[in-house]
Amino acid sequence: MGDNMDNILLIIMDGISDRPDVRIEGKTVLQHATMKNLDLFAKTGINGIMDPIAPGIRPGSDTAHLALLGYNPYEVYTGRGPFEAAGIGIELKEGDVAFRCNFATVDEKLVVKDRRAGRIKDGTKELAKAVDGMRIDDVKIIFKEAVEHRGVLVLRGKALSSNLSDIDPHKDSVRINRSKPLSENAKRAADILNRFVEESYRILKEHPVNMERLRNKKMPANIILPRGAGIFPKIGSMDEKYGLSSACVAGISLVKGVCRLAGIDILDVKGATGGVDTNIDAKIKSAISALDKHDFVVVNIKAPDLYGHDGDVFGKVKIAEKIDKALEPLKGLDCLKIFTADHSTPVTVKNHSADPVPLTITGKGVRVDDVQNFDEISCAKGGLCRIRGKDLMNIALDLTNRSEKFGA
Amino acid sequence: MGDNMDNILLIIMDGISDRPDVRIEGKTVLQHATMKNLDLFAKTGINGIMDPIAPGIRPGSDTAHLALLGYNPYEVYTGRGPFEAAGIGIELKEGDVAFRCNFATVDEKLVVKDRRAGRIKDGTKELAKAVDGMRIDDVKIIFKEAVEHRGVLVLRGKALSSNLSDIDPHKDSVRINRSKPLSENAKRAADILNRFVEESYRILKEHPVNMERLRNKKMPANIILPRGAGIFPKIGSMDEKYGLSSACVAGISLVKGVCRLAGIDILDVKGATGGVDTNIDAKIKSAISALDKHDFVVVNIKAPDLYGHDGDVFGKVKIAEKIDKALEPLKGLDCLKIFTADHSTPVTVKNHSADPVPLTITGKGVRVDDVQNFDEISCAKGGLCRIRGKDLMNIALDLTNRSEKFGA
Repeated sequence: MGDNMDNILLIIMDGISDRPDVRIEGKTVLQHATMKNLDLFAKTGINGIMDPIAPGIRPGSDTAHLALLGYNPYEVYTGRGPFEAAGIGIELKEGDVAFRCNFATVDEKLVVKDRRAGRIKDGTKELAKAVDGMRIDDVKIIFKEAVEHRGVLVLRGKALSSNLSDIDPHKDSVRINRSKPLSENAKRAADILNRFVEESYRILKEHPVNMERLRNKKMPANIILPRGAGIFPKIGSMDEKYGLSSACVAGISLVKGVCRLAGIDILDVKGATGGVDTNIDAKIKSAISALDKHDFVVVNIKAPDLYGHDGDVFGKVKIAEKIDKALEPLKGLDCLKIFTADHSTPVTVKNHSADPVPLTITGKGVRVDDVQNFDEISCAKGGLCRIRGKDLMNIALDLTNRSEKFGA
Repeated sequence: MGDNMDNILLIIMDGISDRPDVRIEGKTVLQHATMKNLDLFAKTGINGIMDPIAPGIRPGSDTAHLALLGYNPYEVYTGRGPFEAAGIGIELKEGDVAFRCNFATVDEKLVVKDRRAGRIKDGTKELAKAVDGMRIDDVKIIFKEAVEHRGVLVLRGKALSSNLSDIDPHKDSVRINRSKPLSENAKRAADILNRFVEESYRILKEHPVNMERLRNKKMPANIILPRGAGIFPKIGSMDEKYGLSSACVAGISLVKGVCRLAGIDILDVKGATGGVDTNIDAKIKSAISALDKHDFVVVNIKAPDLYGHDGDVFGKVKIAEKIDKALEPLKGLDCLKIFTADHSTPVTVKNHSADPVPLTITGKGVRVDDVQNFDEISCAKGGLCRIRGKDLMNIALDLTNRSEKFGA
């Protein structure tokens, strides 16, 4: 394994960072959980805390992953759409405008009855096909279903803008919105988008899948509600930026999407679901073998974030301990290892927060400090002090002697 | 000495910061060395770590010194040439394009036989004179020899650009490069540069110094190979920026060059060689007396960087201890004293790295923390946390009550 000494393994424990909770004696999940391996990595490494974006800025998973991969989210992130599109495997072209969408149920006055069309699970592939490929003026419509009631819409045409308001009203019992252009140059895209949504209603309301759902007393998925417009970002690949051949192990499509846009190979890992039942052991095993052929491997473990969103403090403690056990095979691994989170998801907040995340870097060349535990407060006393997400890749490149000198 | 209480003394121990090394029990040079005085300054001061440029950015000595003096290297640094030129005393004018050069040996097909012309030591002054002062079109050529096989070329004329590729191929046994313009506006400068190099070959190959070298079976210095083009940066002097009368004690020309461009008086110190044999005691003595006439004195001690580049861990420990002893006279000195490095030069890397450097500030008004030792990990726990090089001068100005209020 000595050949991989200068390779970089980045383990992102999604949302594992937390705030104190009275249910676990006023400690954070990481302070409360028993974590033999993460504590060992902290003891043998250099530690710090990290603002994924900047102090007090509450990150999304997409913007945080962009930052941790060295991209400036303020430059490349215009909306979630393109990342979702890339996540489900749509090949985007420069200038494409992409949206996250829900299949929803509306009445004949376009008032939303259910934003998730009765949490529809089956038949969305056929519904998607019915609207995919149409043209509105000279704009090509690409539509693909995603998990459950979700889908992705892409508008492909000349001179489109993503500076648009959402069609999705984000609640039930109100009429759907008309998309408004938020700048002069977005008028045409707003018009196309509004016409697509009307057209989707016209086509879907009489689609056989929905006729069948009505017969079964299920909410019909009779309209598509786009939101989160974004234009395809021109971001250099990790290879172009850093000369790194890279691989990603992740369960959720959003993280895969970010990685795909960054030119990172997406590894297919059996049992990596992105859910709480994900096979963490398989992910770690896959990452270790990927290091034989890649300079840089990033692993996302989504489960702690899900427990955070649910406010399930004991579930989150348990998954932290489960992850810790799964990291055991990394003990003997000879490469630069980085352990961190993309953001905090405090169980008391049930959402992301801007609290900085703990960070441990261990491997050859690292200045070892005297931090003994991997948690938010212990790491804050380490040799890295407080850094920002976008600095992490530069630090890793320097520790593996890949950085370029600025000056002489 | 009480009159100098608000003066600022900045001691830059070049490259003294390091990474752990197994040869000294996995400690860094600073952790391993016995340093009575630096530890005392740390104990009686406030401490932190500093990214000379930014986290993960590997600094050159030139860019780092610029940053530590409060300049933004991304704004003022276009290449090393102007700093070398200033270092050997060429008075630059705005718009001058300067290059570092080697005297080299080429055959009649302009294939490089020796990039350093047999490490020529004598006769370069005469060779330089033979090309200095010529004109190519309306561009004036200034050429001056530097140490050993080195020299500096300046092109002085209207509308020249430094956006040029190197003539120097940076290795032997290949033909010299033609300089290519890297932007449209650099075409003329590239043409002038290429013609200068041809002309240098025509003149130097038959120069008496080289005839003599050939007779003695030495490599003739028959061509000049420029590299590192930079345009003279417009940087305000330390006096203009901060109202500080300033002096510099340094052995090496690059640091002198940076200081000269910043309008800092360059003090001539006997025995300050910039080498490992430099007279550190004389430098410190000179700095102390300079504080009587200057608000700000910066001292560069180059030796630790040289041991770092050589990978000589024990030499570096020794020089760290020697520097520490030489700092003894500063104990009773009543001014704001700052101890730091311009970058790390780990003995395991034999080059600069981006690892942050330790920083100690001691003097009146400083919040004393509980750091006990001057090293990379101890200082990280200090009251300054982690700052950037370009913030240092502002902090020093504020601690000496010179800063201007922003707002009311």
